[in-house]
Amino acid sequence: MQLHGKHIISGQPAPVTEEAASFFAVNPADGVELQPAYREATPDEIDRAVRAAADAQDSVAALAPELRGRFLREVAAEIETLGDTLIRRCVAETGLPEARLAGERTRTVNQLRMFAALVEEGSWVEARIDRAQSNRKPTPKPELRRMLMPIGPVAVFGASNFPLAFSLAGGDTASALAAGNPVIVKAHPCHPGTSELVGQVVAGAAKQIGLPPAVFSVLHGAQYEVGKGLVSHPSLRAVGFTGSERGGRALYDIAASRPVPIPVFAEMGSINPVFVMPGALRTHSAELVSGLVNSATLSVGQFCTQPGAVFVLDCPEREHWIEETGSAIRSQSCGVMLSAGIANAYAAAVMELESNPGVEGIGAEPAAAERSVKRKTSPDERSSLAAGTVACPQAFATDLETFLGSPALRSEAFGPVTVFIRVNSEAELLRAAESLEGQLTATIHADNDELAYHTALRAALTRTAGRIIYNGYPTGVEVCPSMHHGGPYPAATFPQFTSVGTAAILRFARPVCFQNMTDEVLPPELKDANPRGILRLVDGQPTREALSALD
Amino acid sequence: MQLHGKHIISGQPAPVTEEAASFFAVNPADGVELQPAYREATPDEIDRAVRAAADAQDSVAALAPELRGRFLREVAAEIETLGDTLIRRCVAETGLPEARLAGERTRTVNQLRMFAALVEEGSWVEARIDRAQSNRKPTPKPELRRMLMPIGPVAVFGASNFPLAFSLAGGDTASALAAGNPVIVKAHPCHPGTSELVGQVVAGAAKQIGLPPAVFSVLHGAQYEVGKGLVSHPSLRAVGFTGSERGGRALYDIAASRPVPIPVFAEMGSINPVFVMPGALRTHSAELVSGLVNSATLSVGQFCTQPGAVFVLDCPEREHWIEETGSAIRSQSCGVMLSAGIANAYAAAVMELESNPGVEGIGAEPAAAERSVKRKTSPDERSSLAAGTVACPQAFATDLETFLGSPALRSEAFGPVTVFIRVNSEAELLRAAESLEGQLTATIHADNDELAYHTALRAALTRTAGRIIYNGYPTGVEVCPSMHHGGPYPAATFPQFTSVGTAAILRFARPVCFQNMTDEVLPPELKDANPRGILRLVDGQPTREALSALD
Repeated sequence: MQLHGKHIISGQPAPVTEEAASFFAVNPADGVELQPAYREATPDEIDRAVRAAADAQDSVAALAPELRGRFLREVAAEIETLGDTLIRRCVAETGLPEARLAGERTRTVNQLRMFAALVEEGSWVEARIDRAQSNRKPTPKPELRRMLMPIGPVAVFGASNFPLAFSLAGGDTASALAAGNPVIVKAHPCHPGTSELVGQVVAGAAKQIGLPPAVFSVLHGAQYEVGKGLVSHPSLRAVGFTGSERGGRALYDIAASRPVPIPVFAEMGSINPVFVMPGALRTHSAELVSGLVNSATLSVGQFCTQPGAVFVLDCPEREHWIEETGSAIRSQSCGVMLSAGIANAYAAAVMELESNPGVEGIGAEPAAAERSVKRKTSPDERSSLAAGTVACPQAFATDLETFLGSPALRSEAFGPVTVFIRVNSEAELLRAAESLEGQLTATIHADNDELAYHTALRAALTRTAGRIIYNGYPTGVEVCPSMHHGGPYPAATFPQFTSVGTAAILRFARPVCFQNMTDEVLPPELKDANPRGILRLVDGQPTREALSALD
Repeated sequence: MQLHGKHIISGQPAPVTEEAASFFAVNPADGVELQPAYREATPDEIDRAVRAAADAQDSVAALAPELRGRFLREVAAEIETLGDTLIRRCVAETGLPEARLAGERTRTVNQLRMFAALVEEGSWVEARIDRAQSNRKPTPKPELRRMLMPIGPVAVFGASNFPLAFSLAGGDTASALAAGNPVIVKAHPCHPGTSELVGQVVAGAAKQIGLPPAVFSVLHGAQYEVGKGLVSHPSLRAVGFTGSERGGRALYDIAASRPVPIPVFAEMGSINPVFVMPGALRTHSAELVSGLVNSATLSVGQFCTQPGAVFVLDCPEREHWIEETGSAIRSQSCGVMLSAGIANAYAAAVMELESNPGVEGIGAEPAAAERSVKRKTSPDERSSLAAGTVACPQAFATDLETFLGSPALRSEAFGPVTVFIRVNSEAELLRAAESLEGQLTATIHADNDELAYHTALRAALTRTAGRIIYNGYPTGVEVCPSMHHGGPYPAATFPQFTSVGTAAILRFARPVCFQNMTDEVLPPELKDANPRGILRLVDGQPTREALSALD
């Protein structure tokens, strides 16, 4: 499949704006630029995409849920049809291994089908009906019916570390489309070709099913101005973002200072603290070593749920376990990161740790740069080194005072680095938990008695994190109704919303209440007969019955 | 009951800070200051209240729902016990008539009992459970359980126009407490005595039931610094506000620029457009006149749902109907507004309308000021005039071009003024609807055929407003599950949340997900046995059954 290198505006490749600056994807494995050139979206192109979405929003909102479902299923099927073409380009743009990307593709199409099923079933709109009481004193009660409806044009920012599952047709796009909104994707500049391939699929599916073409656009850009222009556009209504705290906050600030502020649902990562109690080292020490090493180093640590800080309570087994786990982390293979920029940031974070006098490296390893060079011997590996994208797993140890006194230790270092923090009392354990910023996850490894005993720790983590894991690992974010992938700031900008799982659709919908409306003009979800058979709250009671069948 | 004039910090009257500036409530009916003096909360007092709330938040969150319910019911009962003491002080501070305040008190205690019932029943926490599938390929599925949990310390700002239902123990406080959060109320400086009376009731109920005293505090202040200090406090987690766009936006901006941003759920009013079709004038012209006049002038127009703009489609009956309705509005009694500041703002808004060459007054009335003076003859009325708080209902008419060209016509003028806008075609009707900012409500008066015909108008209003009313009136906000009192900005800061009805509790809770947790430490709502018997989503299916009863 030939890539055209163009924006997709209202489903169509847009004519090239010659004067716009261009950029290329770079293969992180060898530093070589990949054809074709992509161009920075101009203010006019941004305006055309958002304006078209705004003009189409009523038609998109009016699409029957069955049609929205068919659209999402068609996108899923066509992504599968892309086959190796997609995977090959994606490997070239991200350096992620083929097997990982195949797994991510499975997640992506499953997500699309999950949202299709959600809107086909229909109860997600949280329909509520309160019937009139014309004889109520002192005033009659009017009839009120409420449901969630589309929020309006949504911008989705692709994520560097999930080129499929959080990018073009990932969870943000799938949930925003499922809710009935037009979507404008700002493709991540690290994988514009992957974005174009999937973007063509989405636009093609919309065309085939006969949806308004402006239901979907893809804009490219490597510069700050494209994102800024998009988020500033007066017709935009919401933003989905997964990435760094700096990037998410910048978009949040733009959106909050608009004349009409809009929500930026940004998921911005965490250090994902793990608390290890003595009982864990007695009951499942070996499993804990391998599980943690895997979670910390998988995909070169490039997960927002990578466990970056492990607090270990004092016990006789502690030093041995830290040494064993840290050494195992350091002995994992080095790998190619998503981009030279990300690898540089990782190297800087590691260097800051190494220069902290209160922090010690675990094991007898040489400094990271030397190690990388020593280990790499094949021509392929040498070119990655030349590209500056190789990163090696790192493990450090420190004490609580150093952790509390070092802001760098308390914020995310994106990549395969884990710091073990020795805590020597229950009081220190609580101080550690209370010192944490908002987290996507927090994990406790313990035996059941310890888990039950540490009430205050559990309370502190419940306050701090979006997901609390017991004797498990934070990576591997399950896509299902109960998942909450979010948390207090800076894990996310809004602690009330998730970016993974069925509840992610709630970001892109808002309640509308109809008072005393005729049955004829009400949406099907609110009609007397409940033709869609959804679960509704009628006079406060959940039911799937038609109104005529009640009382 | 003697008022002490003190802040209530952690349930206790706080010692007076002598150096803090003081202020008094002013009776808007005569301009006389009311004893006692209240003082501006100092930074130290703000810090003590929020810090105590933060320290107590885990204990408050851990309170059994039955206890939270009992607390809210006790507050309701004790507000009723205050009887005339409360109403008398409230009349003196607000100028609102006794009957109106008695009705508002009923609403307030009903709201408290509604939230008590909601938490006692318990399904509001949206519990979701996805069971483990240990044999799933390629990876086992972990067990996940999710529910809504308290967000943390909440600040509630009292509203001038609802001294009971949106202030001390109004909907914001009731829903924040119901969700399990400590609350710090910033009392409205127009009714500090009312706030103290109700504040003592809430603090007393907490004490009687044995709740942590820091579950509730009341701070006074008439200056911007108190609100700013409160919203800036690092331990605060959310804010509820009802008031002007300027006030709400100021708090929103403070909260959004914090290192850790927090949501300000501000409900900021609207012009509440009404669209009148020819069919309405044929089918219910007389009822429409009286209904609209009542809705526009009730409580001197001091409702955020007051209908400020009425768009009337061309038809033979139009001029007569506008003349009749506008004249009827102007012939309603003048009244005392909540404060001189509010009355001045109203007078300025009316003067701006009068000076607009495209706007005509309806009927042969003299200018507002003259009318007020002429009508007022009793000594009581003369003192209100001297206090500068009297406002008279006003009605104006204009055309669409003038409306579109005058920002003052498109934003809320708080008070009893309604502008009739002549629209002469379907296209103009749509232009009018498309020109509107976000609205709390939009109303259509028509016959059923017209309602069905105007699809694009309904779509535009659905996009713009939180509540769409057919052949009814926007005032009289019903408190029930289906109510949505909110809307796109500037009606509210977050279109996804309501400040009235059971769903208002969702502002003050956030989902937390537990992965692989033992049944012993899970909250009752998520335990296998479902001891609270709540409705849960288990593997995507709604059920009240225990897990053991499924499959």
